[in-house]
Amino acid sequence: MALIVQKYGGTSVGDLERIANVAGRVQASRDAGNHVVVVVSAMSGETDRLLTLAKAIGDVPPPRELDVLLSTGEQTTIALLAMTLEARGCPARSYTGAQVRIQTDSAHNKARILSIDHQTLCRDLKEGYVAVVAGFQGVDPQGSITTLGRGGSDTTAVALAAALDADECQIYTDVDGVYTTDPRMVQTARRLDRLTYEEMLEMASLGAKVLQIRAVEFASKYKTRLRVLSSFEEGPGTLITSEDEIMEQAVISGIAFNRDEAKITILGVPDNPGIARQILGAVAERNIEVDMIIQNVAQDGNTDFTFTVHRNDLQRALEAVHKVAAELSAREVIGDDKIVKISLVGVGMRSHSGIASLMFGALADEGINIQMISTSEIKISVVVEEKYLELGVRALHDTFELDKPPAEG
Amino acid sequence: MALIVQKYGGTSVGDLERIANVAGRVQASRDAGNHVVVVVSAMSGETDRLLTLAKAIGDVPPPRELDVLLSTGEQTTIALLAMTLEARGCPARSYTGAQVRIQTDSAHNKARILSIDHQTLCRDLKEGYVAVVAGFQGVDPQGSITTLGRGGSDTTAVALAAALDADECQIYTDVDGVYTTDPRMVQTARRLDRLTYEEMLEMASLGAKVLQIRAVEFASKYKTRLRVLSSFEEGPGTLITSEDEIMEQAVISGIAFNRDEAKITILGVPDNPGIARQILGAVAERNIEVDMIIQNVAQDGNTDFTFTVHRNDLQRALEAVHKVAAELSAREVIGDDKIVKISLVGVGMRSHSGIASLMFGALADEGINIQMISTSEIKISVVVEEKYLELGVRALHDTFELDKPPAEG
Repeated sequence: MALIVQKYGGTSVGDLERIANVAGRVQASRDAGNHVVVVVSAMSGETDRLLTLAKAIGDVPPPRELDVLLSTGEQTTIALLAMTLEARGCPARSYTGAQVRIQTDSAHNKARILSIDHQTLCRDLKEGYVAVVAGFQGVDPQGSITTLGRGGSDTTAVALAAALDADECQIYTDVDGVYTTDPRMVQTARRLDRLTYEEMLEMASLGAKVLQIRAVEFASKYKTRLRVLSSFEEGPGTLITSEDEIMEQAVISGIAFNRDEAKITILGVPDNPGIARQILGAVAERNIEVDMIIQNVAQDGNTDFTFTVHRNDLQRALEAVHKVAAELSAREVIGDDKIVKISLVGVGMRSHSGIASLMFGALADEGINIQMISTSEIKISVVVEEKYLELGVRALHDTFELDKPPAEG
Repeated sequence: MALIVQKYGGTSVGDLERIANVAGRVQASRDAGNHVVVVVSAMSGETDRLLTLAKAIGDVPPPRELDVLLSTGEQTTIALLAMTLEARGCPARSYTGAQVRIQTDSAHNKARILSIDHQTLCRDLKEGYVAVVAGFQGVDPQGSITTLGRGGSDTTAVALAAALDADECQIYTDVDGVYTTDPRMVQTARRLDRLTYEEMLEMASLGAKVLQIRAVEFASKYKTRLRVLSSFEEGPGTLITSEDEIMEQAVISGIAFNRDEAKITILGVPDNPGIARQILGAVAERNIEVDMIIQNVAQDGNTDFTFTVHRNDLQRALEAVHKVAAELSAREVIGDDKIVKISLVGVGMRSHSGIASLMFGALADEGINIQMISTSEIKISVVVEEKYLELGVRALHDTFELDKPPAEG
């Protein structure tokens, strides 16, 4: 008898009809002989409604009380789903984060899970109940309600799956799996059957917003098999698992992209030790996160330094950099938010040389100039002018034949 | 430094503006040097909204899950009130029933409070916080959320006041106190300064819907001083306390009435032992509650037997009685729902004779025929034809000069 953790997001439980649809899927899984634990989010719109109430009282609501307020969202959903299951003759019991003792630290609004006491759930499952657990919430050592931050329901599901040693953690969303790239941009984009945790992390952090990064990290750490499926259509979805479970390994799994970055270049910086720290330190002081960082070899004792930040942070980052640039007598500072980052992701590229040159060649053939390059073991990212986004992604999707399923490995 | 428990109902916390008004009152009490614990209900309309959702899923929602759902109502209010207090610079912490460990039995939807662990609250109060507690809810020995049933927030407040040995439990409502009778019926009705628990119980059970009966019983048991005030106007309200605390004791405190009853009379019942049990047993078997019961002395071996039930139960009660009447060869069964009960309430009548004859005389002067009479130590009730309700109440209010404050005792 397999133990399955299923997670349904806000859109999937947006109204009573959709909750009935979820109950149907849960019951089907149970009827197929599985033990089922269901994790649900607040009904779509509910968290925003509660946030609006809180903001009407004060711009910065007390974090502890905000968690008390927001956690009612999932509590409502667990009760309604458990009622719906019971009405269909499927025994069910609901649990808040505190009841199932999802123990977190006390960092309200962005708490981290420390441990889960799964005894109650195990007893319920053994007695034939479906356990319905509120996602996104926990309880701190003082007994105060905490929330894991937005999207935290994915993390709840994976943490529960790990604690219960579940056979699979199924994340139901409004898409039917992870694609080679955004199907809205490339018509021939293909749903991937399997993907490694590392690949998923690269895809997720680059803007494929199917899964929360923290949840994937958690799954990777505990080797929890993760499956992304649609709550509205049938289908096998995409299985995210460890590399050794994946037999047929493509060289490249997908193409991710990110339109949310901006680029800052400082020209003519004296090439002294500690320059990078000085520039990035000024940015970090303002709590601005930096993504790509590139520094070229020096010429005539001067170098150029380029990095990217989130577009929303560009102005604040520029202020910081202008100040440092003046101190360093740098020649010029240039900010540019008309850029995009395109990334090729695949664990297979580790053992295949020539991927980078194939990628750069494909972009050059389309007359796309590459502004920045950055690589990791399983990813090559380039920054290009914003207007080339679609052209670049399509060219790469064709070049690496991502529309075709990979051959058996 | 006094410890005050304040309770605000759904209307008093119906929107953010009203919650701000409540916060103002709480802060004023704290600024006056009191320790304050606030108990709140769900925002008005919220419980009904949640019930409608539950009923849409099934006619009889699973009681455990219904409690999980309904308890989100007060949880929302405690968070919003605590936020509002904090925004005004008044340190506050919110608590659900489970967090403050309001331990109840497992009778979902109508649980009874067994104990309260007040350590957390005491620590908070000592540290200068206002404690904001969700009314109406608790937690059973298995850790499941329970609710006390409708109006249970009054009970929560009184139970907390008793557990904390509070100096006063203030129940804020939409009226400014308890009146000698319904002011909508008698213009000269007067707000009472003080009332005993026993009097309040008689007034409450007879339809003066200011306070929940269970809350008054609780207060009486633990000798908790209870005060009914308006959350919208200033004023001292009505203090409900034990008899020995009330110096100026009126003979009659007020006049209550009840329009919700119906009368059933069985004529010509053979006057044998066990007749009453046989008739009332048949009614009780159908779970119908009986209020007044009257049997007159027998004549010619036959007697008449009359009792009252709630109007909604009249038809079902009549069915039961017709069956028994046939078995007993009773002459006739008469049902009548065009009646009202009017009651004179006052602990002072214990030591004053002549109250009953004064009452009956006042009614007779107005040509009002009395159909039934029933008395307790501090109450005389009569049943009269429905159309005489206003006339009867006004006549008694005048006769006993309830518009005038009582003389010092």
